[in-house]
Amino acid sequence: MYVSETKLTARYAETDQMGIIHHSCYPVWFEAGRTDFIKKMGLPYSEIEKSGVLLPLIELRCFYKGFSRYEDEITVKTSVCQHNGIKTTFHYEVFKSGCDESITTGETIHAWVNRDFKPVNIKKYKPEINALIISAADLL
Amino acid sequence: MYVSETKLTARYAETDQMGIIHHSCYPVWFEAGRTDFIKKMGLPYSEIEKSGVLLPLIELRCFYKGFSRYEDEITVKTSVCQHNGIKTTFHYEVFKSGCDESITTGETIHAWVNRDFKPVNIKKYKPEINALIISAADLL
Amino acid sequence: MYVSETKLTARYAETDQMGIIHHSCYPVWFEAGRTDFIKKMGLPYSEIEKSGVLLPLIELRCFYKGFSRYEDEITVKTSVCQHNGIKTTFHYEVFKSGCDESITTGETIHAWVNRDFKPVNIKKYKPEINALIISAADLL
Amino acid sequence: MYVSETKLTARYAETDQMGIIHHSCYPVWFEAGRTDFIKKMGLPYSEIEKSGVLLPLIELRCFYKGFSRYEDEITVKTSVCQHNGIKTTFHYEVFKSGCDESITTGETIHAWVNRDFKPVNIKKYKPEINALIISAADLL
Repeated sequence: MYVSETKLTARYAETDQMGIIHHSCYPVWFEAGRTDFIKKMGLPYSEIEKSGVLLPLIELRCFYKGFSRYEDEITVKTSVCQHNGIKTTFHYEVFKSGCDESITTGETIHAWVNRDFKPVNIKKYKPEINALIISAADLL
Repeated sequence: MYVSETKLTARYAETDQMGIIHHSCYPVWFEAGRTDFIKKMGLPYSEIEKSGVLLPLIELRCFYKGFSRYEDEITVKTSVCQHNGIKTTFHYEVFKSGCDESITTGETIHAWVNRDFKPVNIKKYKPEINALIISAADLL
Repeated sequence: MYVSETKLTARYAETDQMGIIHHSCYPVWFEAGRTDFIKKMGLPYSEIEKSGVLLPLIELRCFYKGFSRYEDEITVKTSVCQHNGIKTTFHYEVFKSGCDESITTGETIHAWVNRDFKPVNIKKYKPEINALIISAADLL
Repeated sequence: MYVSETKLTARYAETDQMGIIHHSCYPVWFEAGRTDFIKKMGLPYSEIEKSGVLLPLIELRCFYKGFSRYEDEITVKTSVCQHNGIKTTFHYEVFKSGCDESITTGETIHAWVNRDFKPVNIKKYKPEINALIISAADLL
C-alpha cells in the first residue's frame, strides 16, 4: 500500500483562541495530503477534474487525539484504504515534528461523479484513472 | 429535547472550484450552531471559557447528502444527544432554504478540560454549567 | 448614497491565538457586506455571475483600528464610493455591538470582466446592471 | 536587504467558484511568508509572542495583478521595508511557478504591543528583537 507524506507548517491564521490549531483545519490538511497522494499516483487531481470527473466528499471522520500549535512542522500520511470504482476512501494520519504518535487521524469517503454531479463508475468511465488508484492502493 | 435554529448566508469565500460550498465549511457552520445553542441554553460559550473550562473536539463526523451554493440561506439545527459530564455530543442538521431534506448532518464529540487541557467532570467542576446542559438536552 | 447594513456573529474558527478575530477574516466580512449590498441593490451577485460577468478584486485596503472577539455581534456598513463602468470601488465600515466607532474600515477595488477574465465596460456590456449600481451609489 | 522565499502549494479549499484562489487567501500566504522571514531572521515568531510582545496588523494592502489556481506552486518573497521600533512594514511578492512576474504584491503594517495590546517601542522593550530586524532589514 502506497503512503504519501506531505509536509506543511501550521499557520497563524489556523490557530484559535485556545492557542491551538482549530479543528476545522485538519480536513483542509487531509485535502493537502490527498492532493499530494493523487499527484504522486501519476495524475494531478486538477487534471482529473479537467477530464470531466469530480470527487466530492460524502463522509468525513476526524479523531483528535492531540493538538498542534502555530509553526509546528506537520506531516500528513495519506493512503487509499477502500476503492470500488464508485466510492474511494482515503485514510490520514497527522504527525507533528518531534512526536512519534499521530495527533489526528481521519477518513474521507468520496463519490466519483461527472460534471453534473451524477454518480459514475470510473472502472468503466475512466479506466486509466481507476488503474492508477488500484496500483497506488495496492488493491490488485 | 431543545433544538436551536441558526441562520446564516453561504459566503463566496466558502465556495470552491466545483461551484459549491467546500466541505470544510460545514464543521465551521456546526460551530456557529453550537455557539448559538449554548448561548440560548443560558450562558454564552465565551463566558464558559472565561470561567476556566474549554470544550475541544475529540471527534467529528460529517455526512454530505446534498450541497449548497453561494448566497444560499442556511439553517443549522443543533441539539445535544449525549452528555455524561466528561464528554458531550452535539448533533447537527443543515438545511438550505427551499429544501425540506437536510443537505448535511453531523456530530461533534467534545471533552471538558481545564485551561491546562486536563480532563474534568463538569458535574463536579461546574455543576451550574452541567445543570444547563442537562436541562437543554432534556436528559433529566 | 445607499449604505447597506449586514449583521453577523464572530465565529470561533475566526479567532486566533491572540484571542481576537484574525485580520484575514475582515476581507471575508467585507464580502458578506458586498453580497448583501448587491442583493439589496436589486440583483443578487450570483445572478450577475450567471449572466456572464464577474467582479474580481484588483485591490484591497484594510485599516485595523480596534479588534473584535468571539461571539461579538458585528455590523458591516457597505457602500459604493466610485464606479466608472470598468472599475467599481466599495467602502466598508465594521462595527461591533456596543461600540460607536468602527473597529475596521476598508476598500475593495474591482474590475468587471467576462468569463474569460477579459475586461468589459458594463455601461455597454450590461447596462441594466450599470443602472442599478449608479442608482445605489447615487452617482447620477 | 534580506528577502526570504517561502514555498507553498495552492489548496483546493482556497479556490472559489470563479475557479481561482480566493483573494482572502493572499493575506494568509503573506503571513506564511512573514512567519518564515522572522524564523530565518533568527527567532521564531512563536518565541517572540512567548516573550510578551505581539505584532498585530494595523494596515493591509493587497494588489491583485494576476491569479493562481489549485495545485499551483507558489513562492512568497518577503522583506521588511520600514521599521522604527513602534511600527514595522513587511512587503510581499507572490509568484506562481512558471511565471516571471508576480501575480500579487502587498504590504502589511504592524504595531508592536504588549500582552494588554498597549503599544511598545521594541528598541527599548526588546532591543535583541530590534537588532534582529534591523539586521534583516539592512536598515543600519
